[in-house]
Formats: sequence, C-alpha cells, structure tokens
Amino acid sequence: MTADSKKEKIAEIKDEILKRVRPTAEEKTKLESVRKGIIDDIVRIAQEQGQCDIIPLSVGSAERSTWLHGNHDIDVFISYPEDIPFDEFHGRSHKILMEMAKTGDTWEDRHSEHPYIHITKEGFEVDLVPCFRVKSGAEIKSAVDRTPFHCAYIKENIRGLEEDVLILKQFMKGVGVYGSEVRTGGFSGYLTEILTIHYGGFENVLTRAADWKCGVVIDLANHQTLEHDHPLVVVDPTDPKRNVSAALSLTKFALFIDRARSFMKNPSPDYFTPKEYPPMSSEEFEKMMAKRGTEMIGISFQTPPKAEDTLYPQLFRMEKSLEELLERNEFTIVNTFSWSEEGEKSIVFIELLDAELPPLQKRAGPPVWNESNAETFCKKYKNNPNTFSFAIENERYVAEVPRKYKTAEYLIEDLIFKEAALGRHIRDSMKTGYDVLREKEIMEIKSESFWKFMNEKLTAQIEP
Amino acid sequence: MTADSKKEKIAEIKDEILKRVRPTAEEKTKLESVRKGIIDDIVRIAQEQGQCDIIPLSVGSAERSTWLHGNHDIDVFISYPEDIPFDEFHGRSHKILMEMAKTGDTWEDRHSEHPYIHITKEGFEVDLVPCFRVKSGAEIKSAVDRTPFHCAYIKENIRGLEEDVLILKQFMKGVGVYGSEVRTGGFSGYLTEILTIHYGGFENVLTRAADWKCGVVIDLANHQTLEHDHPLVVVDPTDPKRNVSAALSLTKFALFIDRARSFMKNPSPDYFTPKEYPPMSSEEFEKMMAKRGTEMIGISFQTPPKAEDTLYPQLFRMEKSLEELLERNEFTIVNTFSWSEEGEKSIVFIELLDAELPPLQKRAGPPVWNESNAETFCKKYKNNPNTFSFAIENERYVAEVPRKYKTAEYLIEDLIFKEAALGRHIRDSMKTGYDVLREKEIMEIKSESFWKFMNEKLTAQIEP
Repeated sequence: MTADSKKEKIAEIKDEILKRVRPTAEEKTKLESVRKGIIDDIVRIAQEQGQCDIIPLSVGSAERSTWLHGNHDIDVFISYPEDIPFDEFHGRSHKILMEMAKTGDTWEDRHSEHPYIHITKEGFEVDLVPCFRVKSGAEIKSAVDRTPFHCAYIKENIRGLEEDVLILKQFMKGVGVYGSEVRTGGFSGYLTEILTIHYGGFENVLTRAADWKCGVVIDLANHQTLEHDHPLVVVDPTDPKRNVSAALSLTKFALFIDRARSFMKNPSPDYFTPKEYPPMSSEEFEKMMAKRGTEMIGISFQTPPKAEDTLYPQLFRMEKSLEELLERNEFTIVNTFSWSEEGEKSIVFIELLDAELPPLQKRAGPPVWNESNAETFCKKYKNNPNTFSFAIENERYVAEVPRKYKTAEYLIEDLIFKEAALGRHIRDSMKTGYDVLREKEIMEIKSESFWKFMNEKLTAQIEP
Repeated sequence: MTADSKKEKIAEIKDEILKRVRPTAEEKTKLESVRKGIIDDIVRIAQEQGQCDIIPLSVGSAERSTWLHGNHDIDVFISYPEDIPFDEFHGRSHKILMEMAKTGDTWEDRHSEHPYIHITKEGFEVDLVPCFRVKSGAEIKSAVDRTPFHCAYIKENIRGLEEDVLILKQFMKGVGVYGSEVRTGGFSGYLTEILTIHYGGFENVLTRAADWKCGVVIDLANHQTLEHDHPLVVVDPTDPKRNVSAALSLTKFALFIDRARSFMKNPSPDYFTPKEYPPMSSEEFEKMMAKRGTEMIGISFQTPPKAEDTLYPQLFRMEKSLEELLERNEFTIVNTFSWSEEGEKSIVFIELLDAELPPLQKRAGPPVWNESNAETFCKKYKNNPNTFSFAIENERYVAEVPRKYKTAEYLIEDLIFKEAALGRHIRDSMKTGYDVLREKEIMEIKSESFWKFMNEKLTAQIEP
C-alpha cells in the first residue's frame, strides 16, 4: 500500500466509523432537553431551599461534544463556594440530592468518600455530584473538584478535533483499552481528549503511539514538575502534580502501542469493534483443559458489597500473593485471573502446570558460617527419622525432607488466612465461607457472563 | 563439658587415633629399606647410562614423617639440571624410567603431559617422576618441579607437629574432605601440613576452621601477592603466585567448617572413621524412589579412556549444562550427580520433580517496543492454528503454545548434542552410542560400587 492510498484508506475508515459513532441530531436534541431539565430542577430546588450560592455545571463528554452515539451518560456537578466547611457542604448538598432523587425514574446513593447520587431519567444515566468551586485544579478540596477544570480545558482546546476524539475513543473501545476503572486499567475519556489535542488528531496519536516506549512524558502546559513512575506520564494541564494516565496499566499501554502500530500498517474497520467471546459450554471447557493438560483451581467466595474499583485491587493482590505463595512451595503457575459478579460470587483462578508434587522436597538451609541459623536448621532436620538425606552443597546445608504441601489445594486451605495477602473486604467475605473449586466444580458454574469470561481467558487472541 | 574436661577428652582421642594411624616400627623399617633400594637402583642405572648429573629425591609424606599407617606410597623424583632442553630431558628420563620399570613387580606408564611411571614393589606403590632442579618454586619449568620445594619446606617447618598432621589427615579422611583429586575437591596432604604449621597443631586448626567464612586468606611467608577467587586462599610459601587450596571445592570447604565446629563441641573418635554406605539392592532402590516420588534419569556411555582428573570436570560440566537446559524448558531439578567406572560405563544422573510436563507451554516474547523481535515473535505464534492464546502481559507478548518437550527423556535425546556443553572426551564417547536410563534400566545395573554410590547419593547424612 502506498502512503497516499493508505491515507485515503484511513480517511474512508474514519468516515465509515463516524457514521456509526456520531450522535444523531435526534439524540442530541433529546440529551440537550434532558440535561436542561436537570439543571433547571437543580436551580429550582436550590432556590426553594435558599441555597442561592450553588451553580450547576454540566461537565460530561456531552458538554465537550465528544460523546459516542448510544452513550446515555449525563454528568452534572453542583458547585459550592470553596470556603464553606465540609459539614455544611455535606448537609446542604444532601438536601438538594434528596430532592433531585425524586425527579428521577430510579435513583441510588453512590457516594463513597464523596457524596453523590445516580439517577435514571428518560433513558439517561445521570450522575449528580456536589463539588467545591476552587480557584484552580491545583487547589482542590475534594477529588471531584478537578473535573470542571478538565471540562473547561477540553472545551477550550478541542476545537475542530471533536470527531477525532470520537474515532480514537471508538478505536480504544474496539481494541479493548478504553476505560479507566481499576478492572480495566485503560485510557480515560479525558486522557483520550488530551492525547488528541497534544498530537493533533487521530492518525497522529496512533503514529506517535506506535513508537512509544515505557516512560513517555507528555506535558502540554509545560509544567515540568513531578517525576512519576508510570509507563505513560501525561501531566494534567489543570494540575501540575497529577498524572492523567496514572490508572493506565502497563498491559493496556503496551496493547495500545501494538494495536496502533498494527492499524497504521494495515488500516481496517475491524479495529473499531470489540472482540466478543461467546460463552463456552462446560463440555468445551473440559475438552480445552484436557488439551492444555494444566490444572485449574478456583477460590470462590461471596462478592463483598463494594464498588469494583475497591474490589479489583484486592482481587489482583490476592492473585499475586497466591502465585508467590505457591511458587515458594515449588508449584509452577501458568496464569492467574479473577472473575466477579456483583451480589454473586467472586472467584480467583490459579492455573498450574501441575497441582500435585512428589513427596520429597529439597530444602536449602543457611550457609555453614551463619552459625545460629545453621544450628536451628540442623536441629530441625539432622538426625530426624523423616529426613531422606542431610548434606552440604556449596556453602549451604541441604535437607531432603517429606513435603508438607503435596497438593496446591491443601496448601491453599492451610495457608490462605495465614500467609496470603487478603484485602480486608475479601478476608471478611471468606471468613463467612469459601470453596476451593477444581475442574468438576468449575464446570457446574451456571453464569453466562462467567463462561464468556473463561472463554476469553483461555483463548484470547490479539486481532486482527 | 567443661573446657578442661573437653581438653582432656580430645587428648585421649588423639592418643587413641595415633595408635591406629602411626606407622609401626616394622612398617617404617620396611618402607625405609624399599625406598633406599629404589634410590640405589636409580643411581646405579643413571651411572650405567652415563647420566651423572641426575639426583634422586625422596619427596612423599614418608620423607616428611607425615604418612599414615597402611599407606604404602613412595614418591621418588629424579631431578635434572634446569638448563637442559625438554627434548633431552624427555629422552634421558625415558631411558632411566624404562630400566626402573624392570625393577618393579609390575609397572605402568602414567605420564600425561609429564613423563612418569608407577611401579609396585614389595607391596609398595611407587611413583617415579623426573623433574628439573630449578632455583625456587616460583621458577618451575614443569608442574612437578615444585614438589621438592614443598617437601623441603614441610621438613624444615613441621618439627614437632608430625603427629598433629597424622591426626588432622585422619580427621579429614573420616569426615570425607581429604584428597585433592577433581572428583573429591578436598584438602591435599601439603595443604593439611601447611594448616597444621600455620595454626600450630590439630586442635588449633579445628578451632580456627570452625570460624572460617568464604574468603579466608593464609599467607605464611607474607607474600601478599595475587588475589584468588577461591573460598580458601593459602599462598604457597614456596611460590607466591600459587594458591595451595585452589582445588578445594566450596562444598568440601564448608563441610570441613561444619565438622570442625561439631567436633570441637562434642569431641568423639567417630569423626576419624569414614562413613561406609553398603550397596543398596535394586529392590531397595525401587522402594526408595517410590517413597521419594521423584524421577531419576541416567545418561550412560562408555567411560572415556582418560584419567579421572580429566574426566570429572567434563562430567560436572555436563551435569550443570543438562540442569540448565532442562530448567530452561520448565523441568524442576532435584539433584544431579555422576558415577564413573574405569573401562566400564559412566552415568550422569538427573533427578527431577517430574519427568513429564503438560502439553501447554507459556512463552514470553519481547517487549512491544522491541519492534523487530516483536515482528518475529508475532509471525511465529500469532494466528498460528496451534496457538492456544496470544496476548500481551505487562510490556510483553505472551503466547500459549503446544509444548515441544513434554518429557525430559525426549528433550535429552533431541538436544544433548545440539545444546548441552559436552567435554570433548565425553562427546567422542557418546557419539559411539549412549543410553537414556529410567528407573527400570537403572535397576539392571550390576556393579557393587555403583549401588554403594547410589545409596550414598540417596541417603547421605552428615554424622555424627
């Protein structure tokens, strides 16, 4: 493909994708009307309650004209003067939110550290978030106070590149790197917008990303402030201390580089559609495991009643910790991954080369000249009737002893509370009960989303 | 035990051991007479051949009064002026050696780089070694020229400590660290004598050795010359560039420390008798392997017709190389060891946690940003119908592929000539044929020395 024909091809693809992702006129009108209704409600309720110093702010991708067709999210912030105390802030915002809840078709309290509610209205998903009206993104009083500055920055700088943001977002969705939740560890909407502005458009982002290496620094406002230990550092133009891509995992960073490079070599519309993994049947799973010849163990417990962004770091830490614990005991790990369903089970999976080890274990002790440790080691194993052999190899004592943990299952059952790093919420849940699942028990799981997930984990392919 | 009663106990033990290891008066007379006869023969033959510039030198432990009861070794060197050419040296020494050969009950040519012969005479094992009469141990022309200087140094400095050397040698034999052949990697006679002189007696050597750490330097003549990368450095008082304990392995160094410390805590005559491992029966071997649950593989070939000191480094290197090769392919090694019988088989053993691995292997590829390697890796595994999955983990491509080497046996057969580091003599021997033995075939080995060796390897104990 010549450079020119490739350019043309990409232009064609962009057109084609835009047709799919650009919101329709009807969609825009609808959203505009719902959003206006919400802001009017807030103003009305605030006046009724005598809260005349609040200002409602529309801050979502709709406000920046970078929302994708079919995305029905509306974000409205309710800003308070920055000098009011937290107590007053909480009390007053609670009063407004409780009235606003009544205006929705449904609503739920979603606050964790920060108060906010989620309502649905005429098919839209609306987040209503109180915040402080601080002077700049660097002087925030609560984590959400930065968002209005982000919104303003993008609105001011995005001009003319709105559609490139749409294309880039859809590309990221298609290749599986979009979304900054912990579970995904991908690119946030704001990060996508910043990249588009910085490099000047969709193709430029991809061309440059194809050459990224770990440690890229992007600093639009030329803040040149803090060092960050992340694969990609994008200094927030509204807050010099913040890395916009702090939540981006190394895996998603690398995957984006691969996909960008691959697309720029062979542009195709296929990159814009996320790969779907159909649910595998338990018989397919059984056959696949026989073909792999590995052993799959799952540790299953009731999903703690926490948001995914709280739960997933704990699941990831548990995977890592079990991997280390098993490897210290000579098991060889192939993969670990976690599946979780709200209100149902969470399962941490460990795939092993072999779940059973021979009765003999060779233990290396301290060097001969570490006298006090040597004494302890010798006392334990030397002249012990169970010891197979006791010798010196290089500078160390070495004992061949009966293995305590011959199966991974027994090791997990015996050590999980004693030696694994369990997050507080997972530990609490497991204390009420947990199961160690082997192939047979895994086959009995009924959830369709589980079997999609398992198919993806066992047959993942980077395509095209 | 109080310090005094311990001192007394050690004195008693020394007395007891000395009774066993001190040569008898009869033995001394006999040795003296045989040695005198040999020297007389050399002088006579040299005169008959007109070689009037040679001087025979008695250099063995007998000469230094540090020989153990029952040891029937006599070492006599035939020294030549240092300025004669090698050709002449070889020609003339050959003439004397051939005549001396006739004086023995049996004889054999044992020269490798250096000419010498071994004869037996009246029950004595006699080495006859020509050398150059150089000015000092630092100016040698051939490796053996140093020996007369060693002998002279010990004779001059050992006075009064001869019996301590006997005790220390017997202690080292008893705990299995005596002998400087490559196969043993232990303490030589000269090293034992030097240590006795330096520390001033048997108990002092043991007391000080109990506190040794890797990197001890002993420099009697205060040469302070070269750096050596050995656990123990004993600068040769007759040659500042040489480390007398260069052949000492880390294992034997550490074992001596352990045994010295243990003896000084609880003195006992038991330390002076080498542990004997009776031959195990093949049924006992079968039972023991079932109990261990590990897998034993032996690679068997005809022993190359080489001296042990040439063969053993090659065997050790082969063990190490096979261990690395198998570990690179995810097998877990428990032990490796080698057995060899002159004129018969040599066998390199590998004991594994498991000799069979599952069909699936996970392969980590290059980082995404290593573009040319990434391309090669992707070409090989991506969209390959045999590939289980192809993904990115952290910065790397990762493919799950069918494992090529599912059994250690097949790996060895396929790769031993291609990827293992085989010494020249072993390679030559294996090219004429070799076998990979599993438990059944190992059980068929008939040699008694083999079954002693195997018993020792599987049940080694440091005692008391």
